[in-house]
Amino acid sequence: MFRVERMVVPGGTEAIVRGGRDLFPLLPAALHGVERIGVLGWGPQGRAQALNLRDSLDGTGIIVAVGLRPGSRSVEDAREQGFSEADGTLGDWLEVAAGADLVILLIADAALAAHHEEIFAVLKPGATIGLSHGFLLGHLKELGSTFPAGHPVIAVCPKGMGDSVRRLYRQGATVNGAGINASIAVHADPDGYGWDRALAWSIALGSPYTFATTLAAEYHSDIVGERAILLGAVHGLVEALYRHFRIEGADPVTAYERSTEAITGPIARTISDDGLAAVRAATGDEELFDRAYSAAYSPARDLVAEIYDEVADGTELRSVILAEQRLANRPMTEIGGSPMWSHSPEVHARRQTPDRSTPNGDDAGAVRVDAMTAGLFVGTMMAQVDEFAARGHAWSEIVNESVIEAVDSLLPYMHARDVAYMVDNCSRTARLGTRRWGPRFQAAYEQIALPHLARPADQTLIKTFLDNPAHQALAAAAELRPSVDISV
Amino acid sequence: MFRVERMVVPGGTEAIVRGGRDLFPLLPAALHGVERIGVLGWGPQGRAQALNLRDSLDGTGIIVAVGLRPGSRSVEDAREQGFSEADGTLGDWLEVAAGADLVILLIADAALAAHHEEIFAVLKPGATIGLSHGFLLGHLKELGSTFPAGHPVIAVCPKGMGDSVRRLYRQGATVNGAGINASIAVHADPDGYGWDRALAWSIALGSPYTFATTLAAEYHSDIVGERAILLGAVHGLVEALYRHFRIEGADPVTAYERSTEAITGPIARTISDDGLAAVRAATGDEELFDRAYSAAYSPARDLVAEIYDEVADGTELRSVILAEQRLANRPMTEIGGSPMWSHSPEVHARRQTPDRSTPNGDDAGAVRVDAMTAGLFVGTMMAQVDEFAARGHAWSEIVNESVIEAVDSLLPYMHARDVAYMVDNCSRTARLGTRRWGPRFQAAYEQIALPHLARPADQTLIKTFLDNPAHQALAAAAELRPSVDISV
Repeated sequence: MFRVERMVVPGGTEAIVRGGRDLFPLLPAALHGVERIGVLGWGPQGRAQALNLRDSLDGTGIIVAVGLRPGSRSVEDAREQGFSEADGTLGDWLEVAAGADLVILLIADAALAAHHEEIFAVLKPGATIGLSHGFLLGHLKELGSTFPAGHPVIAVCPKGMGDSVRRLYRQGATVNGAGINASIAVHADPDGYGWDRALAWSIALGSPYTFATTLAAEYHSDIVGERAILLGAVHGLVEALYRHFRIEGADPVTAYERSTEAITGPIARTISDDGLAAVRAATGDEELFDRAYSAAYSPARDLVAEIYDEVADGTELRSVILAEQRLANRPMTEIGGSPMWSHSPEVHARRQTPDRSTPNGDDAGAVRVDAMTAGLFVGTMMAQVDEFAARGHAWSEIVNESVIEAVDSLLPYMHARDVAYMVDNCSRTARLGTRRWGPRFQAAYEQIALPHLARPADQTLIKTFLDNPAHQALAAAAELRPSVDISV
Repeated sequence: MFRVERMVVPGGTEAIVRGGRDLFPLLPAALHGVERIGVLGWGPQGRAQALNLRDSLDGTGIIVAVGLRPGSRSVEDAREQGFSEADGTLGDWLEVAAGADLVILLIADAALAAHHEEIFAVLKPGATIGLSHGFLLGHLKELGSTFPAGHPVIAVCPKGMGDSVRRLYRQGATVNGAGINASIAVHADPDGYGWDRALAWSIALGSPYTFATTLAAEYHSDIVGERAILLGAVHGLVEALYRHFRIEGADPVTAYERSTEAITGPIARTISDDGLAAVRAATGDEELFDRAYSAAYSPARDLVAEIYDEVADGTELRSVILAEQRLANRPMTEIGGSPMWSHSPEVHARRQTPDRSTPNGDDAGAVRVDAMTAGLFVGTMMAQVDEFAARGHAWSEIVNESVIEAVDSLLPYMHARDVAYMVDNCSRTARLGTRRWGPRFQAAYEQIALPHLARPADQTLIKTFLDNPAHQALAAAAELRPSVDISV
């Protein structure tokens, strides 16, 4: 139904489908009989997907309904957004699931773990089960269980937060193709329309381009990525750097700017605009960048490998389930109490002062790209890229989960709020994972990377970085994506 | 065979057996037909136990032989200690296992996981399997396997490092009863002599008193304890405190003394001599101690509960096995690189200077009991005590795994070397666990406890501390233990 293009990546090509609003008229046919879509859950992904799908399918006659748990506090916001009990587009999750031809499961992972059987039990015969990440597959595997037979099981996995999925979609009204890239997977395809439906769903969400994966590969890269460079490693790095700069004598605001602000601002922006190697040049001190890169790469690679092993083994998922049981009756503690975050308002306010503006008026450029911070950050990012490549992931998945999601979705959000706010307000699985692995990264920087900074750079490692196939894959992905305003 | 006494503990009594060299003549009879003991492994526990057993059984005709893996580098030291291939007291592990009536498995956990079936296959009919902690039980459970039928399975678990087990045993030559307490368990008892044999083994190791547990309870408290107050939490706490004091303006040596030195020296000594509540008084600032205690208790308790869940579930053990597979071909990184440890020689040297000596000449008293450090440390220790009590452990096990092992074995060793050295040189399972959980404790202190220090103390919590039944249990245990010189 949609035109498949070949994206040139290292070692060959990968099939992708470019999105765009011009394709919306094709959606009803591509959904092959789906007349009613039930979106279960109203977290950031549920909200964004329900709204994007409704907007994209407006006028087609296909209904998008939102299903919530009894007593859900989200009902007010869903009503405000125009979903209503009166017209049947808002209701109890099991009723909405029972009435839909495509049931998209966007409730929290713990809820999914606890209630998937009830949901499966009410599905219409042949209704399609839709996922936005592979958690449930991992959980079923752990239980020795499977998806119910006779139902197509497909996944559309936006490579960005729910907020970004909605925000960039709205920009897509004026910039054709703006949006968050997504991967798709077809896990069960009894009627043969799985790929068409998944592509239609992805295009309706506004994905600039869609690439194929498997539910297992998506699950691994998604869960590992958020525990590493997307959230956990960033948090660990800025906590380590802030204290490092403070002990070296920097005042709190300067220490904040040299750590967090440098990463969420100019480093993220430079990577987004010009790629990874451009950061090295932008620092003005390639020798220091190279030393920092060399110091961070190996301990970061060890940690990414450790996380990957535990995710693939099911250990990480068991830990999430155990934590949810333990936390059933009390709140999760927050990470925002460490001293750095009390200076966020001050740092953010300084962005507006005249002496910190840049010629292009871009506040992200006001803070210098600290060479040491940049080397540690990029070294960690490349450690994830290389580990994912070694584990056999497709290049689209590697660069989206390791680079694009970071610089176009999460880091801009962290720049607008702060890192701790982001962590304390993301999905519970991501939040638990960040609390679990962020401190490990912090310790690795404090105990290994920072003490090794004085050592000469590993020139072989730097050459491998500069020649890394990821640059080509990233450039290919960038060509498929219109330039968008990623400010939050 | 041995006189069982009742130790008064909160809520009742626990059966214990007091040790002592006067009981050595009873050992052959109590071992019920064991003529040859094979100790497999020459790590700190293997070395200490083989030497203590040989010394205690000297003249009885019972042979103690050491079995090593082919190519083991330990063969030189074992020979130097008088074990020899010529007289059959040193040999290949499988041969030694095949010839012994009691086979004590003290090889590394990963080796045990990989090779237990080979060892089980060569055992003599009815030979007793001896363990010094419950790791293998957890591993077999994970595999859905069991110990081989027809063999007694017993455990003697010294509540201290191998080095302490040997060192205090030697002191026992002049101080009757000096040694490291041990718990015993009988997991399979086909001939009905399991308890006698376990008591004999424990007394031969020099345990001042021996208490009963189960292999599962021992495993849980042992693995959780080393990840929490015994190693992981101490490491996390001193890393957090060192940076905290440095950022507040302290020079490196002062920051080291207020964190590490205070804990490994006077705080440990005070608890060992006078109990937990005595630390509060010794600080000279009970108000600050109480605030620090209150700030640390809750996040520490959360972490101990988390570790406990993961150990009981098998998740932690899966993580160890995965790490050993990943690390098969490369060394584990060390944690000694963080800046504090470069100041160990300077801090240790200062202990000898005249202005830091104390009236009793005890260098551990030279550093003040920092009230904040003490409150955070004792709050963490009590969090473990309370969590173990809530999980139903016997009081002997609780106070040995949470307090006595810390203040009489590990902290004195850390005082002599340093915390990072201790972690980088302990058993691989403990080392992996410390690297896994130490950073979590560090983050909890940095993100929650230290930022909450300014809050008023939780008076209910302090009252619960002062009235805690653990004080009574600790005092009862102390009465059973002669005063020994715990300097390393």
